[in-house]
Amino acid sequence: MNSIIITIGDELLIGQVENTNASWLANQLYSLGIEVKKYITIHDDKEQILRTLKFAEQNSDIVLITGGLGPTNDDITKLCLCEYFDTKLKFDEKAYENIKELFAIRGFEVTELNRNQAFLPEACKPVYNNCGTASGMWFEKLSENNSKKIFISMPGVPFEMKEMFEQIAIKLQNNVLTGAMFHKTVLTIGMGESFLADFISDWENSLPENMQLAYLPQPGIVRLRLTAKGNKKNDLIADVNHEINKLQKIIPDLIFGYDDDRLEKIIGDLLIKNNFSLSCAESCTGGNISHLITSVQGSSKYFKGSVISYSNEIKIKELNVKKEVLEKYGAVSEQVVRQMALGIREKYNTDFSIATSGIAGPGGATDTKPVGFTWIAVACHDKVVAENFFFGEHRGRNIQKASVVALNMLRKILLKLLSEKK
Amino acid sequence: MNSIIITIGDELLIGQVENTNASWLANQLYSLGIEVKKYITIHDDKEQILRTLKFAEQNSDIVLITGGLGPTNDDITKLCLCEYFDTKLKFDEKAYENIKELFAIRGFEVTELNRNQAFLPEACKPVYNNCGTASGMWFEKLSENNSKKIFISMPGVPFEMKEMFEQIAIKLQNNVLTGAMFHKTVLTIGMGESFLADFISDWENSLPENMQLAYLPQPGIVRLRLTAKGNKKNDLIADVNHEINKLQKIIPDLIFGYDDDRLEKIIGDLLIKNNFSLSCAESCTGGNISHLITSVQGSSKYFKGSVISYSNEIKIKELNVKKEVLEKYGAVSEQVVRQMALGIREKYNTDFSIATSGIAGPGGATDTKPVGFTWIAVACHDKVVAENFFFGEHRGRNIQKASVVALNMLRKILLKLLSEKK
Repeated sequence: MNSIIITIGDELLIGQVENTNASWLANQLYSLGIEVKKYITIHDDKEQILRTLKFAEQNSDIVLITGGLGPTNDDITKLCLCEYFDTKLKFDEKAYENIKELFAIRGFEVTELNRNQAFLPEACKPVYNNCGTASGMWFEKLSENNSKKIFISMPGVPFEMKEMFEQIAIKLQNNVLTGAMFHKTVLTIGMGESFLADFISDWENSLPENMQLAYLPQPGIVRLRLTAKGNKKNDLIADVNHEINKLQKIIPDLIFGYDDDRLEKIIGDLLIKNNFSLSCAESCTGGNISHLITSVQGSSKYFKGSVISYSNEIKIKELNVKKEVLEKYGAVSEQVVRQMALGIREKYNTDFSIATSGIAGPGGATDTKPVGFTWIAVACHDKVVAENFFFGEHRGRNIQKASVVALNMLRKILLKLLSEKK
Repeated sequence: MNSIIITIGDELLIGQVENTNASWLANQLYSLGIEVKKYITIHDDKEQILRTLKFAEQNSDIVLITGGLGPTNDDITKLCLCEYFDTKLKFDEKAYENIKELFAIRGFEVTELNRNQAFLPEACKPVYNNCGTASGMWFEKLSENNSKKIFISMPGVPFEMKEMFEQIAIKLQNNVLTGAMFHKTVLTIGMGESFLADFISDWENSLPENMQLAYLPQPGIVRLRLTAKGNKKNDLIADVNHEINKLQKIIPDLIFGYDDDRLEKIIGDLLIKNNFSLSCAESCTGGNISHLITSVQGSSKYFKGSVISYSNEIKIKELNVKKEVLEKYGAVSEQVVRQMALGIREKYNTDFSIATSGIAGPGGATDTKPVGFTWIAVACHDKVVAENFFFGEHRGRNIQKASVVALNMLRKILLKLLSEKK
């Protein structure tokens, strides 16, 4: 079973609005086992819409359409669908009740424009909108070769579309779906994409035929997505997990999580479970590590705070870095980053601390310390671990990479400590 | 002049990665006066790629392609382009130098997989990648009806693509474009989109026919993009500026910049010019304000550092917030945020300071202090200004909004001080 997603709207094609619907829908369809062959984004233009509907009918089983259902004149999707299915508009009492109710809640009278939204094509089954005035539409059609094609039209407003898709998903599951698909993503850190591809190539080449691997890099992180297609979902889950078990033996140190796991959330869970607290002393990362940590809800339970020590003066005064050490080795040095980690841990009285010092760039490089050169330290009760890295030339990415690498150092130390405890 | 954007990648079609490239590119093309007729997103699948290239050639003047240029086996765009243009791969010395240099900076040897990225189609003009190993490609072709078609292939990694498009835009401007278009974006803060639309509706309705206004909201910010089309660019520039001058008189306090201006950069420029220094005491924003400030290159010249005081203990110990005040009024209060601002300014010995304390959510709300309730203070030599805000229910957006609003408070105070000085 496959699909094509058509997103309609002038605002999308001038880049005024991010086209988030298509990827959200794709993700939902994918987890229903429906392959998405293509997204197509087009203008609110009759000819283009009709041509694209035809193309999609010829090339897929299910056509999902978002957008162009608003009350104003520039929204023409409904009229195009009428023409495409050679049907007429008919007043739908339930859709109108829905619109009236929404307006009543907001304390407004229904306008003529919005009343018109209750007219729906006779040939469709309406899908009522619980969050807005535009109804969705479900069409079925026998195509030239006698195969059943399904067309689903939904509003373009993301939260309306998402809510409506819950109804659609149930309808699809009950009426349409066969076959199964399963995917799982392995999250790795510590090796670049091409090195990793080399390193696991034997494993990749031995994957069964119904499985596909994709590399999805992010700053500091490479995600490996394994997809299996077949008949029974349970079999696929077992097969994928079997392959991932093999991978775990090849790169045990690089894997930090799966699917939607986030490093900062994983660390948070470890800290909270063991009643540990955390503080940071950030120089080159400038607050980004603290920002990541505190983006997790409930982080106040383990995160006490940080010192962002952008100047040497603050490193000395607030983190107890020795002036002589700073002068002798420079701010971006093992000696300084160790003292920073120890300094903040003691001062903020936490179990763990993270410290960073590096040349984020573009200025500040020296002969021996290029842009991207970074020291990171993690301190706990009995030791300080420090490592250095060469990230790259791009300031923003250097900050991102240093942040995830630092969080990962903490994760590893936490895991080691917890395994020793057992 | 029109275009079709093709984005290639399995990861896009299962919704694992947001397709941000298409809308970013559309926005850039739009500002160059190039209409985008369509986006098409397809799999890393040879047949589909070739068919879509053909379709795009027949239906547009410029075909922009992103993705599928990575070193791994699943990336096949380059080979498809070779087949489409009936050309062969040839080793490109300059592309290889580029790859070697990138690897040298990171301290690695070039792998075979990455060396292969230096092989480029003979028929293309390479566009070198300043941020990664995959070169871009520029192809020209005379189509069946003798019109010139341009194909541009770029990497899918957003920051590589964006950097590369700067080179492409210049090439397009010099070689391809005719007619004129000009746009300017007014950046506003302090009024929501729909209120702002009401407030400036008379001005909007009086805009000349060749001008269009678009609202582009972001957390805390509304961007107003004014676009003019015509024959002479200089006339358009004058016309747009004339309209913006009128707008400035209507909402003088809401406008903080234009086009790509960033609040944190504007503040940085003001601080540096006047030799002022800055520190922060962040609670609810958890380091994000410091992160924004230090994302600006050269920020170490004015930014000394911050205390992220996530716990009350740190507020008391490190920021000199009085324990009685904390107990009486709570951490999210005018009294506490004022003391935080004063405390950090004195401790870090800076001219200015910013402090935040709020309920980021989803936990922590009380009857009188809902999620999103936030106090922000800015301190300078002779005063502390504090304001409270109700942002919303979403943790991530609350952090973003509080950060830009805080930066904007500092900007206003700086401007007032500097105007009084004159």
